[in-house]
Amino acid sequence: MKITVIGLGLIGGSLAIDLREKDFATEIIGVDCNEEHRRQARNRGLADRIETLEKALRQPDPGLVILAIPVDAIVSLLPKVLDLVGPEVTVTDMGSTKAAITASVEKHPKRAQYVASHPMAGTENSGPAAAIAGLFRGRTTVICDAEKSAAFALRTIDRMYEVLRMRKIYMNSADHDLHTAYISHVSHITSFVLADTVLDIAKDVKTIFDLAGGGFESTVRLAKSSPEMWQPIFKHNQQHLVTAVRAYIEKMQGFLAKLEGGEWNEIRDFLTEANEIKRVLAKIGGRGAP
Amino acid sequence: MKITVIGLGLIGGSLAIDLREKDFATEIIGVDCNEEHRRQARNRGLADRIETLEKALRQPDPGLVILAIPVDAIVSLLPKVLDLVGPEVTVTDMGSTKAAITASVEKHPKRAQYVASHPMAGTENSGPAAAIAGLFRGRTTVICDAEKSAAFALRTIDRMYEVLRMRKIYMNSADHDLHTAYISHVSHITSFVLADTVLDIAKDVKTIFDLAGGGFESTVRLAKSSPEMWQPIFKHNQQHLVTAVRAYIEKMQGFLAKLEGGEWNEIRDFLTEANEIKRVLAKIGGRGAP
Repeated sequence: MKITVIGLGLIGGSLAIDLREKDFATEIIGVDCNEEHRRQARNRGLADRIETLEKALRQPDPGLVILAIPVDAIVSLLPKVLDLVGPEVTVTDMGSTKAAITASVEKHPKRAQYVASHPMAGTENSGPAAAIAGLFRGRTTVICDAEKSAAFALRTIDRMYEVLRMRKIYMNSADHDLHTAYISHVSHITSFVLADTVLDIAKDVKTIFDLAGGGFESTVRLAKSSPEMWQPIFKHNQQHLVTAVRAYIEKMQGFLAKLEGGEWNEIRDFLTEANEIKRVLAKIGGRGAP
Repeated sequence: MKITVIGLGLIGGSLAIDLREKDFATEIIGVDCNEEHRRQARNRGLADRIETLEKALRQPDPGLVILAIPVDAIVSLLPKVLDLVGPEVTVTDMGSTKAAITASVEKHPKRAQYVASHPMAGTENSGPAAAIAGLFRGRTTVICDAEKSAAFALRTIDRMYEVLRMRKIYMNSADHDLHTAYISHVSHITSFVLADTVLDIAKDVKTIFDLAGGGFESTVRLAKSSPEMWQPIFKHNQQHLVTAVRAYIEKMQGFLAKLEGGEWNEIRDFLTEANEIKRVLAKIGGRGAP
């Protein structure tokens, strides 16, 4: 199958690497609006050819078009991509929010050719240089509003995620955005805010980073993530994130009150309660394995 | 050198494994007040012998005693250990706070035999089963108030950290506790609170953890940490942590206000500012390498 990948960054580039496996992609046509990214993608051989969007979509045989760009760019581009593709082409996106994206093509005459999906995989790095093999293996992907997609399009996307060795789950776009607010987006906010808090104190206390150990690095890892990717995600998911961040701040204020009051038994109980996450994550770890 | 390790958990057990290297430890005597931990340590061969504290300290030749137990237990036990050891024995501790611990032996006649230290290494796991080789390699250890320790004791601890391949830095106990509040302890609090927030919402939204990806796991990893270890650390470092958590909440409220107000340019600027952590961590990564 001939595949057009729009956006050759971490996600698009990693897809391109893995989709060559098992001859799922017979040819990969790359599209990227960033000249430096096109150069890097060319050097790494991520695509067979790099074309302009219009030229890439005017391909003769049916195939698959994947949008792997920031969510605001997906909202702008997805309707135009559907306008341009032939009737047997499947279109999907890798966006981390789904409600605004699916709304942008709700009434599109070719809506059924589009499958809304979100592979829950990534690293804090970005750009074609960050693309790696096996990024998706063993992880979960979400297919949203599957009933709005044609059977042939769902089959194509199913096969793609089989090649990527991902576990599939199905839900509607609204639920997806609620769940990812808590599981993914708030994690990024807490990391960004912690990084900024520590950078602030470090201005006064010069040697603070001499101490940075593994614990700090893992909690602020996500703060290295690309603002170009995450600002639009926070914008799309504003409503759920306001609720989630409020709940988080309330918990944090509760902890602060216990800390200020020296309520050590209550703090121990709270830590023990939060420890429950260990059991939950162990369960996911077992199920998420390839 | 004959070494007594008090506490055969993650830190004490990992120490025991590594200190056999290069014949630094000719014999390891283990002490642990937890019967199940003694059994596990025996099964893993972490110590040559496991003794009661009194018997372990009544050893004939000079050596090293290492306290690798929760910080509140160190405060109780350290003066007693100094009471019991002979004049050529070096004593050190692995505690994550230093001010309360050093204060507990400030006036002890054998204070000079004690070296206050904190190796900045660990995982979210605990107990003898969690002990691993190479835990300390390439990381940083802090030696506090070195001027209060005898030259022979500092030499012993220097050699120990050389065997463990750790980078040494020196500071006073008060500075240590301020810096670790921001770099290590607040990271744990944000993880515990995030885990608890998500566990709360998950009670209502059943499938939420189906989505848990790599980002979430890394930010909540520290929430798996032992409450028995961390509650006493928060207690010891109460004052700095109240300040640090207040600063963090204030930042988080600032972020929430931008999110509520739809101030997307300000959010992008904030994320870009927090991104600076990437450059800082890259610098540490380079220097921390073995």
